[in-house]
Amino acid sequence: MQSKKLKVGIVGGTGYTGVELLRLLSIHPNVTLTAITSRGEAGLPVADMFPSLRGYVDVAFSDPATVDLTACDVVFFATPHGVAMSQTPALLKANVKVIDLAADFRLQDTAVFEKWYKMAHSCADVLKNAVYGIPELNRAHIKNASVIGNPGCYPTTVLLGLAPLLEQGLIDFSVPIIADAKSGVSGAGRKAEVATLFAEASDTMKAYGVAGHRHHPEIHAQITQLASSSGAKIEFIFTPHLVPMIRGMLSTVYVKLSAKASDVDLQALFEKRYENEQFVDVLPAGNLPETRSVRGSNQLRIAIHKQVDSDYLTIVVVQDNLVKGAAGQAVQNMNIMFGLAENTGLVVVPLLP
Amino acid sequence: MQSKKLKVGIVGGTGYTGVELLRLLSIHPNVTLTAITSRGEAGLPVADMFPSLRGYVDVAFSDPATVDLTACDVVFFATPHGVAMSQTPALLKANVKVIDLAADFRLQDTAVFEKWYKMAHSCADVLKNAVYGIPELNRAHIKNASVIGNPGCYPTTVLLGLAPLLEQGLIDFSVPIIADAKSGVSGAGRKAEVATLFAEASDTMKAYGVAGHRHHPEIHAQITQLASSSGAKIEFIFTPHLVPMIRGMLSTVYVKLSAKASDVDLQALFEKRYENEQFVDVLPAGNLPETRSVRGSNQLRIAIHKQVDSDYLTIVVVQDNLVKGAAGQAVQNMNIMFGLAENTGLVVVPLLP
Amino acid sequence: MQSKKLKVGIVGGTGYTGVELLRLLSIHPNVTLTAITSRGEAGLPVADMFPSLRGYVDVAFSDPATVDLTACDVVFFATPHGVAMSQTPALLKANVKVIDLAADFRLQDTAVFEKWYKMAHSCADVLKNAVYGIPELNRAHIKNASVIGNPGCYPTTVLLGLAPLLEQGLIDFSVPIIADAKSGVSGAGRKAEVATLFAEASDTMKAYGVAGHRHHPEIHAQITQLASSSGAKIEFIFTPHLVPMIRGMLSTVYVKLSAKASDVDLQALFEKRYENEQFVDVLPAGNLPETRSVRGSNQLRIAIHKQVDSDYLTIVVVQDNLVKGAAGQAVQNMNIMFGLAENTGLVVVPLLP
Amino acid sequence: MQSKKLKVGIVGGTGYTGVELLRLLSIHPNVTLTAITSRGEAGLPVADMFPSLRGYVDVAFSDPATVDLTACDVVFFATPHGVAMSQTPALLKANVKVIDLAADFRLQDTAVFEKWYKMAHSCADVLKNAVYGIPELNRAHIKNASVIGNPGCYPTTVLLGLAPLLEQGLIDFSVPIIADAKSGVSGAGRKAEVATLFAEASDTMKAYGVAGHRHHPEIHAQITQLASSSGAKIEFIFTPHLVPMIRGMLSTVYVKLSAKASDVDLQALFEKRYENEQFVDVLPAGNLPETRSVRGSNQLRIAIHKQVDSDYLTIVVVQDNLVKGAAGQAVQNMNIMFGLAENTGLVVVPLLP
Repeated sequence: MQSKKLKVGIVGGTGYTGVELLRLLSIHPNVTLTAITSRGEAGLPVADMFPSLRGYVDVAFSDPATVDLTACDVVFFATPHGVAMSQTPALLKANVKVIDLAADFRLQDTAVFEKWYKMAHSCADVLKNAVYGIPELNRAHIKNASVIGNPGCYPTTVLLGLAPLLEQGLIDFSVPIIADAKSGVSGAGRKAEVATLFAEASDTMKAYGVAGHRHHPEIHAQITQLASSSGAKIEFIFTPHLVPMIRGMLSTVYVKLSAKASDVDLQALFEKRYENEQFVDVLPAGNLPETRSVRGSNQLRIAIHKQVDSDYLTIVVVQDNLVKGAAGQAVQNMNIMFGLAENTGLVVVPLLP
Repeated sequence: MQSKKLKVGIVGGTGYTGVELLRLLSIHPNVTLTAITSRGEAGLPVADMFPSLRGYVDVAFSDPATVDLTACDVVFFATPHGVAMSQTPALLKANVKVIDLAADFRLQDTAVFEKWYKMAHSCADVLKNAVYGIPELNRAHIKNASVIGNPGCYPTTVLLGLAPLLEQGLIDFSVPIIADAKSGVSGAGRKAEVATLFAEASDTMKAYGVAGHRHHPEIHAQITQLASSSGAKIEFIFTPHLVPMIRGMLSTVYVKLSAKASDVDLQALFEKRYENEQFVDVLPAGNLPETRSVRGSNQLRIAIHKQVDSDYLTIVVVQDNLVKGAAGQAVQNMNIMFGLAENTGLVVVPLLP
Repeated sequence: MQSKKLKVGIVGGTGYTGVELLRLLSIHPNVTLTAITSRGEAGLPVADMFPSLRGYVDVAFSDPATVDLTACDVVFFATPHGVAMSQTPALLKANVKVIDLAADFRLQDTAVFEKWYKMAHSCADVLKNAVYGIPELNRAHIKNASVIGNPGCYPTTVLLGLAPLLEQGLIDFSVPIIADAKSGVSGAGRKAEVATLFAEASDTMKAYGVAGHRHHPEIHAQITQLASSSGAKIEFIFTPHLVPMIRGMLSTVYVKLSAKASDVDLQALFEKRYENEQFVDVLPAGNLPETRSVRGSNQLRIAIHKQVDSDYLTIVVVQDNLVKGAAGQAVQNMNIMFGLAENTGLVVVPLLP
Repeated sequence: MQSKKLKVGIVGGTGYTGVELLRLLSIHPNVTLTAITSRGEAGLPVADMFPSLRGYVDVAFSDPATVDLTACDVVFFATPHGVAMSQTPALLKANVKVIDLAADFRLQDTAVFEKWYKMAHSCADVLKNAVYGIPELNRAHIKNASVIGNPGCYPTTVLLGLAPLLEQGLIDFSVPIIADAKSGVSGAGRKAEVATLFAEASDTMKAYGVAGHRHHPEIHAQITQLASSSGAKIEFIFTPHLVPMIRGMLSTVYVKLSAKASDVDLQALFEKRYENEQFVDVLPAGNLPETRSVRGSNQLRIAIHKQVDSDYLTIVVVQDNLVKGAAGQAVQNMNIMFGLAENTGLVVVPLLP
């Protein structure tokens, strides 16, 4: 039996997280796409910009100045940072829930937000009640949230890879946690820039943001919270890399295990931690994941490997940066917020080859 | 309300058409995967070979020598040429329907088959009743067929691109039809070969099979049949190319229009011909399709362009070679054969980007 | 013993043809790079923009407003259309030779130029004496030229593929010549545009410019000239495609042979025509070229295939669009103009894999 | 004036290091290619297998059983592990120098060799005098060597990235050195294998060999030697990844600095260490290298980044795995062994884009 359909709005539907939301929501059985806004493209049929949606999305982009989003049940913001926080208070007043795929509601410390995003935070009170949207870590809060700060793509991989250890106090923080992360080029968004042209970004790779990436403080804040009982000061080293693939993200995380870990079957710990999570897959011991094994799906896969005769553990995590790393997780959050089965509209087998 | 589930067998599940069938059938609401055979991999869980299927396909490959396929309602052959014809007579006796993704039931002229595939045809009587499986051309016959010869990937693009003209007698056969076709590398299959290694096949392209490709006689036979009323001898030039993309096929077809065509609105003709076909999309005049606009879906898109001051028409057709060009079309055929809605299990939005 | 070095200027050194000129000229034994201009990047060391040139190019970009190019022996224009024609008259007065990699000096018919490039032609008198720079067709004129219109990338492949037939009158012009051409993405230049982003242009392909591409009139004019003795009106159909590779161009050309051709050994004709051309390689009968077989080099390779029992010939031509299709051919022209060995600085083995 | 030419033999010319040696040596001014052997391809003209060499390499593959390599001045082995050690003693007797691109002469500890390569070492005495061929670390020994163990691709990046620190005792070995390394697919060689097919290895990435990669002991042995004065036991964690690019290798190395390092200007240290090395380029502070900035060339580029308020240093190193990581370094070694200018035949500007 199917419940009444949710009226859904998308603000900023022309980027990659926008079109990905449309891909997922256009065949979501409990959703009606009510409005998709774009300042630059108002009036243009959505399927003219994204021919992949021909036959699935029949509406045109709306002008954000004229569309009334308060008629929606939920609004997704797939916009640049700063847009969601300017519109969220009005939506909340109208009882509309908000899921922001940008950074406005990810960092509880507004000083950190302002340092990294170079703008003042305009609604600290809303922020206080916003929930960081990783269901596998915060499901109970998401259920009752009105505002979700959907995580950045990198943080989801690093945090789900570390959570079983952090929750059990199995990391020795005298040594930094190192995350060497690799992303497909779609992570840079659908903006006209020389650096991400095909002829610039294919058949090559590079590290970037070594001097400071916005996901560093986001991950650091969440790690600190997950390890709050330890009271330790945690050093976190983060090196993102750009890799010539459209989608896909792989994070290789290195940690020193605490003495307490020597008695723990870590493989069993990870499997147990995620046994009821259908979107988190712990691979059998000895296996390593490929990013294509999750292409187009909301799946995230984890493998762990203990160095021989060593206290160090290597954790490898893959996801599709646009799905579990962005739009898929946002839909998963929506399902939870509205009491739907968590996988509704997300039963998508990864595309391989 | 859901009908009783079909018991489905797949012979040869380790190639790309095999895994693609599994991707589609594993979430098909009317299908139970009964047996997936592989001589080389018997006993191996399918998801160990294709981790993308973890959580969706729980069975292991079976030994074809020991599995009883006669319990199935339908068996797909995703095997090398020659396997299907050796097993089909026994299956038919057991009232099992057969859909062959190889060439055994594509060519009605066994002499042509034997010339191109270098093997004798072992069941000419079965062949006689086999139906060439392009639903948009042969739907009525497919409905009642017991054996389907699922078309090659190239033929589907060329034939659906030409059909509206051929059916109306709008081509001048005094000049050859030329199909300049381009395929992604998955079309070469999942075989260990130097020529299709990443380091050999990326950042490069080539023509191949200029001296003769097996899809040439298949396309030629179908064109001839579609134009049978004309009685003309038809010359067909076919140049396949290998392009560095995983999936995707684009055929650029050049024809001389007959005098009769000068009074016809060709754009309207194409749109009308396919207006009720949900898997064939005629683009608005002036548009051209990209292969990624159909990635992972059963969609095929067509654009036509008339040369200025000329009798020549250029037709551009794209599809995903593994879906509408292989496994998706096979599932579409199965749906028709068993009276299901034709799009059951095929409501997949293309993956873009 | 080495001759006196040529003083070389490059106007517009920040695009792909610019950096390619720098790659070739920075180790050319007879060249001194005197000035490389860029309006936007004046003052920036060239190697800061193109780290591949670190250790090879030590100069910075100059402001075109302040640099005196009349001290050069030759100036290359790697600029948008229209720049070269505005500066060439002054350079000629100072006895500086000009090689334009844009379109200003390619089309002798200024009306055609103005139609396709949407600008008036400002120096028709200079144009009259400009030479179309394909050495294998125009070597004698290039030797004495002061201004070279370096050909577009597509035209070089099509014209060198057709020349042996056109020169001998072996094509039946009652049927159009069809060139189905495919280009790597670098052909679109180093401009920030959404359509050529990695995430838009990889793992996909498309036809473009079907309604009219600027290289169409250029090729048509040259074909007409090469076939001028025939007096025929020639129809030429041209379909360019964008393929996910950085460099590389492949043109598949279809022609109907004239009756006269039936007595000609075409393979021998092609081999003989190019036997003394070190940059044009006719493959042995039965072979087909890959674009990577010329990657990074000034080589162009041709294969021909006669359809069985037919009057139609298929010609396949590959080149590196940035080398023989642009900067390499420009250097080849420079070598000829200054009496150097034609391959000076161009002895580069293609990069494979 | 040109010196007498070296007679060069290549054993095993059909893999990627083989064709890369041919690319470099075919235009090396002091080299004559005397023999290129291949058991499987004897008699086949080399340029038939690698059309990129048409016009540059005119010889055919020889049968190793019949060719006399003792007439050579130097023989390169581009063969599977084990071949070089079986033939080297005889070559040395004939005064032929040997450069092995496989692992036979890389590891001085034969027990380690036998553990990782699963074969006995047959000429430990030759091994004792073999020199590990990284010129920037071992130039003096290479000059006088008869046998060179040309390093693996990964080790060159890691060792040149660490050398300035190791030589000055600036690493705190209480914490492991971590090398997170990424390689293009050509590193897997030109073998027919499913895992490196285009459709398997493109648009995806993965870690591999986490449980143990053959380059681990090689790097560990060299690090230990470079740090021998410290007497410390060094833990080294190595995670190789496969990335969808043809060529290119990027290693991200993480080290804890010793207390002594706090007074050192590390950027200056690196620049000083390599100021006379034309193939090692230390980027200016704040820059990060792309692999394409060295494509096709023998260049290696290094950038260092000190974590803020931390004792940890990140070192990023790129090279072309087939050039500085294999064939180019081998030629550099040959130049040194025969008293040629070290860059002879290696003045190749990287191919960008």
